[in-house]
Amino acid sequence: MTVKTAARMRLIQPFYVMALLARARELEAAGRSIIHMEIGEPDFVTPQPLIDAGIRALQDGRTHYTPAAGLWALREKIAGFYQTRYGITVEPERVVVTPGASAALQLVLAVLVNAGDQVLLADPGYPCNRNFVHLLNGEPVAVPVNAGSGYQPAPQQISEYWTDRTRALLVASPSNPTGTLLDDHTLREYHTITGRNGGSLIVDEIYHGLTYDGPAQTALAVSDDIFVINSFSKYFGMTGWRLGWLIAPREVIPDIEKLAQNLFLAAPTLAQYAALSAFDDEVIAILDARRDEFRSRRDYLLPALRDIGFGIPVAPAGAFYLYADCSRFTDDSYGFAERLLEEAGVAVTPGIDFGSNQPEQHVRFAYTTSLENLQEGMRRLAERPC
Amino acid sequence: MTVKTAARMRLIQPFYVMALLARARELEAAGRSIIHMEIGEPDFVTPQPLIDAGIRALQDGRTHYTPAAGLWALREKIAGFYQTRYGITVEPERVVVTPGASAALQLVLAVLVNAGDQVLLADPGYPCNRNFVHLLNGEPVAVPVNAGSGYQPAPQQISEYWTDRTRALLVASPSNPTGTLLDDHTLREYHTITGRNGGSLIVDEIYHGLTYDGPAQTALAVSDDIFVINSFSKYFGMTGWRLGWLIAPREVIPDIEKLAQNLFLAAPTLAQYAALSAFDDEVIAILDARRDEFRSRRDYLLPALRDIGFGIPVAPAGAFYLYADCSRFTDDSYGFAERLLEEAGVAVTPGIDFGSNQPEQHVRFAYTTSLENLQEGMRRLAERPC
Repeated sequence: MTVKTAARMRLIQPFYVMALLARARELEAAGRSIIHMEIGEPDFVTPQPLIDAGIRALQDGRTHYTPAAGLWALREKIAGFYQTRYGITVEPERVVVTPGASAALQLVLAVLVNAGDQVLLADPGYPCNRNFVHLLNGEPVAVPVNAGSGYQPAPQQISEYWTDRTRALLVASPSNPTGTLLDDHTLREYHTITGRNGGSLIVDEIYHGLTYDGPAQTALAVSDDIFVINSFSKYFGMTGWRLGWLIAPREVIPDIEKLAQNLFLAAPTLAQYAALSAFDDEVIAILDARRDEFRSRRDYLLPALRDIGFGIPVAPAGAFYLYADCSRFTDDSYGFAERLLEEAGVAVTPGIDFGSNQPEQHVRFAYTTSLENLQEGMRRLAERPC
Repeated sequence: MTVKTAARMRLIQPFYVMALLARARELEAAGRSIIHMEIGEPDFVTPQPLIDAGIRALQDGRTHYTPAAGLWALREKIAGFYQTRYGITVEPERVVVTPGASAALQLVLAVLVNAGDQVLLADPGYPCNRNFVHLLNGEPVAVPVNAGSGYQPAPQQISEYWTDRTRALLVASPSNPTGTLLDDHTLREYHTITGRNGGSLIVDEIYHGLTYDGPAQTALAVSDDIFVINSFSKYFGMTGWRLGWLIAPREVIPDIEKLAQNLFLAAPTLAQYAALSAFDDEVIAILDARRDEFRSRRDYLLPALRDIGFGIPVAPAGAFYLYADCSRFTDDSYGFAERLLEEAGVAVTPGIDFGSNQPEQHVRFAYTTSLENLQEGMRRLAERPC
């Protein structure tokens, strides 16, 4: 018997980089050295105080469900973090703790998007975003972005792309794959345009904390009717724990909570107890030292890639990615990534994973490996007849 | 500004029991003793060997993402469990580890259900099931079940309710809230009917292991084109870790994996490492002792409730619930549950959380508290002028 699958399955692409990663693992198993610059998670293990907090939670038998919106104490801590880091008052009631930022994205979009509704997304952008829209039978609309607007949608584009069916604009700051930030002025314009059209503005801030030319302000400084998504994965170094959060307008919290009850029951309990320590001074000190390490890597990698001949017209200010124009070397970035892996032992992510805006001319380099590894990677690239 | 929410939000109900739980917590905070028989998770903490395994995983720094379908070693262990427990061969490739059975349900339905498609569900049944269908803009179709068919859909009903738009039948064995099992014959009939109509059969086995009158066979014994959902939450006692699994037909595994990458990235890493020990003999011995404890509770509670005047025409063979007809006392089970809480200090779940098939005549008692507590609860109910 053949299973009849839903139409959305033809619209949702796998992560193409996974095939490259699998091949990289094969090569490694055969003894080859591979420099991994394709992986979108910090190479650091979770800070020791958070691991210790997790062990204590286990010793205390914290193995039951928490409330759907998360431990109240964690919601308070997250709210407090907005006060101390951003000077913004967020009521704990507006904080919903989620199983990763993925779940936060799903909750927001499920609350907003009907079948046939459109959501505007930057292209290139995080690949899962459009697939969350497909899940809901909505229509993701790719807004092509380029160096001229810092790889973020120009407000004028939002007005142009908005239709009667558009429900929301979803942007990210810092962005994946380009690492660029949104400035306050642009956020305000997005907010004005989405509000004027009766839509919602969703801002993904999961790479907040990992900014290298000064701190970033949260979109909540613009308005508290913006949906803001954040995560314990990247800056806090807790990827495998699967923990994120959402700040939502107060009026939709009952809907968000109702959905969370039904879709996830609750975020992992252990991760929530560990995260209670995430805002402690000693942890923040570790995290900021790691941020400085990421900055050193960026500061090395950006000129090194430009020297080799990659085009990176806008210096990324955050996240841990460099989105590089490889058109000097190829007009097929996927094949190029395959060759880099096979011939140079360097793994990168081809542009096709981030959208349909000139993907064949771009690859993403992640600096989620040591400076030594990055240097070795650059040696290999420079030696290779590109 | 008012947020325009999607139409599905009017179709998705909150868990009504949550309001009762919140009131129970208020009463407790004010010094009242409350017997909790509304809670759908085991009162036992996770078995110590699994806690120890979690601590070791933390000490070993297992804090990064795993592959989307889970650790290969865990997929192998789960496959092996089907061999040892059920005598059924399942290839590890067909096992997908998920963030709770909730995620497994979501994956299966998202792969199968288009907007407007129907899914047949038992009523009463697990409340989230219909809401996963609403998420996808599908139409959950309630098949009313009653004591006559052991609170499971009669095969004849499936034929009657099937339409051109029906994509799947989702059943549970043991069922929540009724605790009844599906027999092999009925499963085979479901499989024949769904197959004949080009649809899929999904069987929720998350309460497997918690059966009291002999072991239950998995639906995979009927056919390997059945989707089977299971969980580490109930029998294995790992609710807060958020870990479940899905066995799917081989041909849809790439689609399932693609969706899992996009929707969840991966199940919590720590939970997966702990679960590697879940099938060890010493753990199974603890779990089976707990199962025996649940059996003792059922064996006490079933006649006790009947003596008081509740109607439980079919003895539940599994899970940890008794679904009781309270029509001798009320024609408003929600108000009845409120009065039981306020007047007798006993919390139960009103029928409305499980569907629209005579919910006002039913309440669910969970025996997820000690025998002593159950006895005290029954004393209070018996003393109360019902």
